[in-house]
Parts: sequence; structure tokens; C-alpha cells
Amino acid sequence: MVTTTSLYGPVTADLALVEETLDRVREVDYEPLARMLTHVLAGEGKRVRPALALLGGRFGTYDLANLVPLAASIELLHTATLVHDDVIDEAPLRRGRATANNRFGNAASVMLGDFMFAHAADLIASTDSTRVVRLFSRTIMSIATGELQQDFTAFDYSKGIRDYFARIGGKTASLFGTACEGGGIIARCPEPWIEALRDYGFNLGMAFQIVDDILDFTGSEAVLGKPVGSDLLAGTLTLPALLLMERSPADNPIRRLFVAKRNREARLAEAVAAIRDAGTIAESAEVARDFARKATAALEPLPAGEPRTALYDLAEYVLTRVS
Amino acid sequence: MVTTTSLYGPVTADLALVEETLDRVREVDYEPLARMLTHVLAGEGKRVRPALALLGGRFGTYDLANLVPLAASIELLHTATLVHDDVIDEAPLRRGRATANNRFGNAASVMLGDFMFAHAADLIASTDSTRVVRLFSRTIMSIATGELQQDFTAFDYSKGIRDYFARIGGKTASLFGTACEGGGIIARCPEPWIEALRDYGFNLGMAFQIVDDILDFTGSEAVLGKPVGSDLLAGTLTLPALLLMERSPADNPIRRLFVAKRNREARLAEAVAAIRDAGTIAESAEVARDFARKATAALEPLPAGEPRTALYDLAEYVLTRVS
Repeated sequence: MVTTTSLYGPVTADLALVEETLDRVREVDYEPLARMLTHVLAGEGKRVRPALALLGGRFGTYDLANLVPLAASIELLHTATLVHDDVIDEAPLRRGRATANNRFGNAASVMLGDFMFAHAADLIASTDSTRVVRLFSRTIMSIATGELQQDFTAFDYSKGIRDYFARIGGKTASLFGTACEGGGIIARCPEPWIEALRDYGFNLGMAFQIVDDILDFTGSEAVLGKPVGSDLLAGTLTLPALLLMERSPADNPIRRLFVAKRNREARLAEAVAAIRDAGTIAESAEVARDFARKATAALEPLPAGEPRTALYDLAEYVLTRVS
Repeated sequence: MVTTTSLYGPVTADLALVEETLDRVREVDYEPLARMLTHVLAGEGKRVRPALALLGGRFGTYDLANLVPLAASIELLHTATLVHDDVIDEAPLRRGRATANNRFGNAASVMLGDFMFAHAADLIASTDSTRVVRLFSRTIMSIATGELQQDFTAFDYSKGIRDYFARIGGKTASLFGTACEGGGIIARCPEPWIEALRDYGFNLGMAFQIVDDILDFTGSEAVLGKPVGSDLLAGTLTLPALLLMERSPADNPIRRLFVAKRNREARLAEAVAAIRDAGTIAESAEVARDFARKATAALEPLPAGEPRTALYDLAEYVLTRVS
């Protein structure tokens, strides 16, 4: 098990600079906005996306003056998407803390997210690279499309695993890819390295999201900070559920949950138990492992050394969250 | 009265290029998203913001390859803010057509707005000027802050005209300023001209919003495409209402509307009638005229000619919407 302090290898210390940049985001004139920003930025995130950006930057000119704004921008963008997600899902809690919508209402939370997107865009523009700005804006387009797909296909059990991969590719993996790629661009890496970094990040993000989706079934409410099976309850089909549905498409507890008008709690418990029993959790973990393997395989063109080792370790770490 | 065809003087024909760029925004792979984009972009807007961007660009090197993406980006950003506004206000109609939230639901509309913001950012980045990208991102920050102020001060009759000016400065005038300034930057105008353009745009935007707020009281439902007095009903105090409240702070029909638990329709009619009778409409129009005068005064450093004449005409036109 990799410890958190050493998790990000040669960039661990520099993450403090990202934290300082994020702290400054709260310094706005309008006091109610400052209060909201403080609330949503206070989360104890693992900062995996900023770490990826800095690690990507380690393969070329490690230009902290531009890498730190990039890394902070990506974390801010990520947090902004969570704020909007929680509005959409009407989620009361995230990691055990009140969501912005719960605390400040939907209207203010939509605007808070917009403000954060804009601040993230401002940070990324301060790198003075329109290439990373475009990468950034296209990533938001991917995320929004992925979320839309999730919204439009809620409670739709005709959609399969291909659709799931497209959704999580858009909503999660694209930003992981952008973090790594952006770091490589800022560091002026050769193009094949930049491509390798993007490939690594994208596949790592796929593994990360699948593990997250597994934890929604295997975790405890205390650790998750939200009820077990939340995704299913919201009508979102994730890999463990989809694999179960593939086995028995005609009749299964997920379908029964989705069409249930009453007793949804009992139907949910039934569905979660069925998924835990069917072995599709282990099968999903294997799929996550495949993506992590693709991620590390993509690292091959990159020079060996501390940064590359850190990326290998991260791919390992993402999987250990399963067990 | 200036006719619409000649309204934008020397850039009128080039607005067709902006329209083409906006049309291409709808070309996305995910069909439900394409449908939503088509719906919200089909509005018959006056395209005043893109026209301002092109006119600003007329004072230097009229570089259409970069001015058109700027102008389209600004219109797209504007439309994205309307999509989020309508979610927040739970508005069913805009200009007599179903809003996105009405047609596609709140969740999808939040994501649609995010997608449009991102696409606008991508267009602006294609100008290859990080200066305009930063201007753009800061403008979204201003707009979101202005909207937040509006949300947080809804039904709060302790807030005065200063607060109103700050709100509309953020939510409307800043984007008008950015349109003009952005045009000047892309055209590589001298700095004092860029500043003059920004000044003009900001003050024009103030006049524009005040006129809009007047029309909410004086217009007919058929022309507005929404009920008369919608702002007041939503708890938003605009200039005609604020001026009435200044005259009789202790007791007036707006206060009675804001605290009413029942008969809100009747209270609203009472408040609208009081505002129409009190002469604060004319007083508000005078304030709009002052801003329009400030706008045209700001044009003084700019060289005389067709583009400047068009800007003068526009300031005139914005006011004629009152009468």
C-alpha cells in the first residue's frame, strides 16, 4: 500500500503551491460568494488531478510558474463539475459534508459552479498557452456531454456497457487525460510523450471511475459519506450492475428497482445484495485492472525515472482502493 | 428610428459569418445534445453583442478570421447565461418560446449551459489571444457574481440603487464592455482606444439593461413573451421599483407584494399600477439616457467615421426601445 505522503513522488511537496493558488480563489469582493467558495474548496480531496498535471510536467522543463496554475485550474474545474452534479442529483451530502445545493440552494449553486468554471478558465489562460486553453475547454465539453448522457439514460436499462464506457470516458477519464497532457504541453515535451501522457491519464481515469463505481456497492455509508447504492437509486447504471443485467436481461432486481413505484428502499437493498452475490464486483475490478494495465503500457515511450515510477505507483494505488 | 438592417452599419453583412459559426455549434455527435443546442440557438436574437465586437474591430486591423470567433463566442456565452438564468428562475418561457428547462428539464439544462460555456471558451481560444481569453473568463466571473447578487438579494427591500447598479453592471454591462474591448484588442487598436471602447460598451450595457427593466413594466405580455411584472414577482428589484421605494420607504405596494403570502397576483397588479402612475418609469428612462450619454462621450478619442457613427446610432437605438 502506497502512503499518501509518498503517493505523488517527486511532486508531492509542490502540491502545497497548488493549494495556495486554490486558497486565493476564495479571495473575492462579494462576501456571500467568498463564503460559498470556502465551503466547497474546504473538502479534503486527494488532489490526484493536480498531481497528474505536475507529474506530466516533470518529463520536460519543469516550469512551476505555469504548471501550478494548470494544476489548480484542473482541480477547480473538477470541483465546479461536482457542484453542478450535486445540483442535478439533488445530493444532500458529499464525503459526509453538506453539498453546496443543500447549504446555499440550487440557484446559487448553479452560479457558484459557473463562477468556478470561469475562474478555472482564467487560471488556465494565465499559462499563456492557447493550446492548453483549448484542451481545457474541450474537456469541459466532454464532461458536460458525459453528464448529459448519464442524465438522459437514467433508468434506461436498454443501454449497455459501451454506453457506460462512453459516459465515464467523458465525465471522468477525459479530465485525467487532460491533466497529464496539459503538464506535458506546458513542459514542452516531444509530441509522442505528450500523447503517451494523455493515453496514460485517460486509461487511469477509466480505472479510477470503475473503482469508484464499485465502491458505491462495496463501501460502507460511513466511508462513502453517502448511502450505499446511490447510483442505482438515481437510475445510473454502472459496471457491476450492467454486468449483472447482461447475465439475466429479462428479469433481475435492477429492472425491478427501476420500475418500482413503491418500496424503493427494499428493492434497492435487493439489487445491491444481488450484485454483491453475483461476482460482478470482481469482474468489474478485473476490467478496472485492464484499464490500469493499458495506462501503464502507454508509459513505455517515456524516459524511466522518478516521475515515471510515480505514475506506475499511481496506477497501482487506484486499484488498491478496490480491495 | 433606425432600421434593423442598417442598425449595425459597416458590419451588418459580416454578421452572417457569425451566424454560420453559431450554426456549426450544433454539429455535435451526441444527438440529444444537438437537439437541445438547436432549440436554444434558434432564438431570433438581435445579435447586438456580436455586432459590438465586430464594430470594435473596425477601429484597427479588421481581422475577420479572429473577430468572427470572438463575436460568436460572446453570443454563445450570452445564450449560455440565459439557459442557466432560466433554470434558476424556473422560467417557462423566453420571448414566447419554451425555455430549455421547460422543454428538457433542469438537470439537462445545467449541463447544456456548461457545454455552451465551454464551446464559447473554445471559440475564444481559437483567436489565439490569451488576453481576450482572460477578458472572457473574467466576464463570466462578473456575470455569475451579478446573478448571485440578484439571487441573494431577492425579496430584500433593504438594498438600494447602488446595489442594483452593481448587479446589472455584473450581469449585463460587463459583457457589452467585453464585446467592444475584445474587438479592439483583436484589431490591435492603441490602448486608449481599447479603453474607450470598453467604456462605451459598459455604459451602453447599463442603458440597455435599464431599458429592459423598464419594459418589464411598460411592455405587453404579447411583446415581452412573458407576464408583465415578472421581475417583481421573482423578487428582483429593478430601477422603476427602487425609485418608488425610495419615495415611500415605509409603506408601499412592493413591500406589500414581497411579504404577501396570498393574493400575490392582485398585489403584483397593484405594484405595477403604482409604478406606472408614480412617474418613476420616466425617471428611470432618464437614468438610462444618462448612461447612453456617458457611452457616447467615451467615444470621443476614437477616430470619426462609419464605425463610430454606428456606435452613436446604437446608443440612440437602445433608448428608442423605451418610447
